Amino acid sequence: MKVDELLTPALVVDSGLLENNIAAMAAALPGSRLRPHVKAHKTTELAKRQAAAGHRNFTCATVREVEGMASAGLGDDLMLANEILDATRLARVDARVTLAVDSDVTVEAAARAGIKEVVIDVNVGMPRCGCAPEDAGRLAELARSRGMAVRGVMGYEGHVVGIELRSTRQEMTDDCMALLKQAHDLAGGDVISAGGTGTYDTNHLANEIQAGSYVLMDTTYAKLDVPFRQALGVLASVISVSASGYAVLNAGLKALGMDHGNPDLDGGHQVLFVADEHTTFFPAQPVRVGDRLTLRPAHVDPTIAYHERMHLIEGDEVLDTWPVDLRGW
Amino acid sequence: MKVDELLTPALVVDSGLLENNIAAMAAALPGSRLRPHVKAHKTTELAKRQAAAGHRNFTCATVREVEGMASAGLGDDLMLANEILDATRLARVDARVTLAVDSDVTVEAAARAGIKEVVIDVNVGMPRCGCAPEDAGRLAELARSRGMAVRGVMGYEGHVVGIELRSTRQEMTDDCMALLKQAHDLAGGDVISAGGTGTYDTNHLANEIQAGSYVLMDTTYAKLDVPFRQALGVLASVISVSASGYAVLNAGLKALGMDHGNPDLDGGHQVLFVADEHTTFFPAQPVRVGDRLTLRPAHVDPTIAYHERMHLIEGDEVLDTWPVDLRGW
Repeated sequence: MKVDELLTPALVVDSGLLENNIAAMAAALPGSRLRPHVKAHKTTELAKRQAAAGHRNFTCATVREVEGMASAGLGDDLMLANEILDATRLARVDARVTLAVDSDVTVEAAARAGIKEVVIDVNVGMPRCGCAPEDAGRLAELARSRGMAVRGVMGYEGHVVGIELRSTRQEMTDDCMALLKQAHDLAGGDVISAGGTGTYDTNHLANEIQAGSYVLMDTTYAKLDVPFRQALGVLASVISVSASGYAVLNAGLKALGMDHGNPDLDGGHQVLFVADEHTTFFPAQPVRVGDRLTLRPAHVDPTIAYHERMHLIEGDEVLDTWPVDLRGW
Repeated sequence: MKVDELLTPALVVDSGLLENNIAAMAAALPGSRLRPHVKAHKTTELAKRQAAAGHRNFTCATVREVEGMASAGLGDDLMLANEILDATRLARVDARVTLAVDSDVTVEAAARAGIKEVVIDVNVGMPRCGCAPEDAGRLAELARSRGMAVRGVMGYEGHVVGIELRSTRQEMTDDCMALLKQAHDLAGGDVISAGGTGTYDTNHLANEIQAGSYVLMDTTYAKLDVPFRQALGVLASVISVSASGYAVLNAGLKALGMDHGNPDLDGGHQVLFVADEHTTFFPAQPVRVGDRLTLRPAHVDPTIAYHERMHLIEGDEVLDTWPVDLRGW
């Protein structure tokens, strides 16, 4: 199949850039040093490429992601890096599953459901989940007293991963990891899991990095000095051209995660605004109705969550079509 | 089933408020005076409620929506109010289908595929699709020369629907509709289709209003002086509470359309930020892990497009669960 035959809007992944991203990360963080986060792409076929590059342990954000990864034969070592209140479904998954806990309630929920292994989720500075570092030892003891193994600690420096100045990013990563080390000293275990695409090479404490975006990238992460390139795009068709100077694509708010702002558009065209099923732009060169252009999302994760499938392309050929099979909860 | 048993995050619709919204609109614009836009909810079961209130003609934004509405037995009169380049699938739909065209290319695409009826899409001031008003007659003639019936004109005053001051909204609606009247005089036909939830009662030219959001509403439209109430929410669970004063819900960027900004949160709690699977907020009153709260999206359409299903609720009872069956393209 040719790329020109794809129904638009279509999520497309450049095969060469994808392979480069996977190879660059596997060289920097081989094997279990990377625990790829599947929330970024929600696609087991893509996870299989990461596994083929040596990473057999994965990070998940939802129970559905854990279930789907196990069903796809990728259940060697799955970490649900998020708190849940009912772990019944998770405990039924036929895979090695480790669940994040950060409170008495979530420890008890895990124990009640029959979860065997947990990791203590530690707040390292971003106002989101995670216990206070000084509480990690108490929670680990509580988990052990309820018969669960404590594999270690995790903590996500999400407020640091997007900082463009490397020296600041390094300093802030170090500050966050000092808190995670404090927690680890109290909680014990072998695992120190942290990090993301923006801190994959500034985080020197974690023995596994939970990066996800590196594999496809977006315009936000593209501003950083990391060796990963934007492999993901939303292919769209020009459906209207105005004499007033703007033109309209048939991809909009239901094809693009918008929390980081408007997408970029290949070819130097300037996006004016995005509506439910449209993107209005000012062309850098004349365009015609029927032309196809590629939008570059500002945030990869919520973009992909809108799409049923992604197409792996090379030049004008569609090499493969993968279901985005880990959507929902 | 009880609401407390729903897996979170869950899209919930208050049954009483939904019925009030449907009744208020049906009283103002009975029968074919309203052509409800299904892009807002993408749910045929909800469209059936609108049909039961007397509206048998619907507006769609995608071919998938047209196909799904026809399959659900709601194909009396479906308008695809959007331009498409390949109308092959649309021409195969077993329903009365009218397609918007705004250029020679889209007219030819409709004719080539065997489309029988079109409407001339006219730009009435918003920089998006639609021909110049003075070009409507020429396009109508072209369509007729290619064997298609021209049912009339449509034009969406989308830049006006959100203006809070009624007098300004009225003046701008009138200006837009003067352009649509000019186009209609040139193009002919019985249909003058326009409008949205914000202009349902300021648009005095259109003989059918394409409102969609009125049925569920969002925080953006809630600022207007319209008689429709927010019936849609995203039910979420508190999964973490910090001693620093904030708490975290298990619904995030993959459960909420974010182009209009952060959601509101029932109970007066203040949303701080939204991440992929989390919303961090400052509680107005103390909350505990396991509490359930309802987020109110800023934009209903791209919120619903993330969800597989919506639950119709009344108090603490789940009355019904409807698939969001018109997603995708």
